Amino acid sequence: MKTIESIQNKIIKERSKLSLKKERDKSSLFLVEGKHMIEEALQAGCLKELYILMGENNPFSFEAIYCTQAVLNKLSNQNSDAKMIGVCTKPKYEDKEFSRILLLDTVQDPGNFGTIVRTAHSFGFDAIFYSKGCADIFNLKTIQSSQGAFFHIPVIQADLREKIPTLQKQGISIFATALHEKSIFLQEVVIPERYGIVLGNEGQGIAKDIIALCEHCLKIEMDTFESLNVGIAASICMYHFRYTRKEV
Amino acid sequence: MKTIESIQNKIIKERSKLSLKKERDKSSLFLVEGKHMIEEALQAGCLKELYILMGENNPFSFEAIYCTQAVLNKLSNQNSDAKMIGVCTKPKYEDKEFSRILLLDTVQDPGNFGTIVRTAHSFGFDAIFYSKGCADIFNLKTIQSSQGAFFHIPVIQADLREKIPTLQKQGISIFATALHEKSIFLQEVVIPERYGIVLGNEGQGIAKDIIALCEHCLKIEMDTFESLNVGIAASICMYHFRYTRKEV
Repeated sequence: MKTIESIQNKIIKERSKLSLKKERDKSSLFLVEGKHMIEEALQAGCLKELYILMGENNPFSFEAIYCTQAVLNKLSNQNSDAKMIGVCTKPKYEDKEFSRILLLDTVQDPGNFGTIVRTAHSFGFDAIFYSKGCADIFNLKTIQSSQGAFFHIPVIQADLREKIPTLQKQGISIFATALHEKSIFLQEVVIPERYGIVLGNEGQGIAKDIIALCEHCLKIEMDTFESLNVGIAASICMYHFRYTRKEV
Repeated sequence: MKTIESIQNKIIKERSKLSLKKERDKSSLFLVEGKHMIEEALQAGCLKELYILMGENNPFSFEAIYCTQAVLNKLSNQNSDAKMIGVCTKPKYEDKEFSRILLLDTVQDPGNFGTIVRTAHSFGFDAIFYSKGCADIFNLKTIQSSQGAFFHIPVIQADLREKIPTLQKQGISIFATALHEKSIFLQEVVIPERYGIVLGNEGQGIAKDIIALCEHCLKIEMDTFESLNVGIAASICMYHFRYTRKEV
């Protein structure tokens, strides 16, 4: 049985750096906490190392390294008293042709980003493309909010200014969500076979030149002129495109 | 010009206790931060005291007390470096007869609760009733997520086991959101004139005996068997009940 009792352990010190984006980018590794997330990582073939609190059972068919709570807290870089932590390799996605796509322009809040990924997977979307300015998908907060959905749905960083024209050439209609003069209400949208929906930044919305690339602009009906949280707006659009029955 | 420079100031020490729920309950006061929230409080007639950082302008027609940053941080009980803080009286709501109602059973996360209140106001709901086990609506996190929408829509604590039968006697149909054997899909719901929608706890859903009180159970369509965040589920239901056009 492998054990680690010292927070000075070299591998723990190394892995604890994974709380930083630049270290995750460099190593293509990231951390997950808790049984559910580790299970997801294992199923996806992404689990590389498993650290479990001494005295706890190992519910996985994967060799564990048993650690003190101090070592686990050092590893996670927060005093969350996690009982199990997984070190994962980033999932590899096939960038094939998709039909139901979400595109995120500078969605900065990790909680919003994660929730959107979780909902997109639930609603059977094929892929998410996100701009460089978005939160990191492998940030612990994003991961928790996503409930690990990114193990199932491709979440791919892309330059939306290049990706949108590429998708359009594949026959995919792109809809911007924006309070634009040419915006129509969500209920008025004629939903095509293959589509991409663009959501924007929490404060600024979608960049103007990205809106200009989209063939369609839509807005969500509201009684009072308030803004919606971007996760809420994304979910309502996805649900409507996917499930609302049209008697045409 | 009134100023406070000492964190030992009696009123500041007193007001700083408002970060605790029991103090808010006792005094019927709560704190808000930032220009937008203070504006909302002022318009709603709920602003009682206004504290602004020395050297900043007062954009409100309301007398300010100018404070050092240390005093403002003491007041807010967090090192958020807020430039303006309002002490507010809790809004008084008329408990009249409503037609579009949300009922929350033990929604514990302040961010979820606040987002639901914000969306309910945007979608023209009349009132929210929430059980004792929910997050506190006057918690700073709930307030921020709600964007102050509770100044516009009644958010009332209630015993749902009493409130649901009362609403039913008023002719309001009550829908539980639950993965129950009698649940029908959201798209199949025949939407009545007056309705209440019940949402449940993040982990446990709605308590069984509360589900039993509801005439209808509904579930949201999904491609993969995942759970949805309660704020997302609430918003999709509200949007659908409010805006989806039915060609019957």
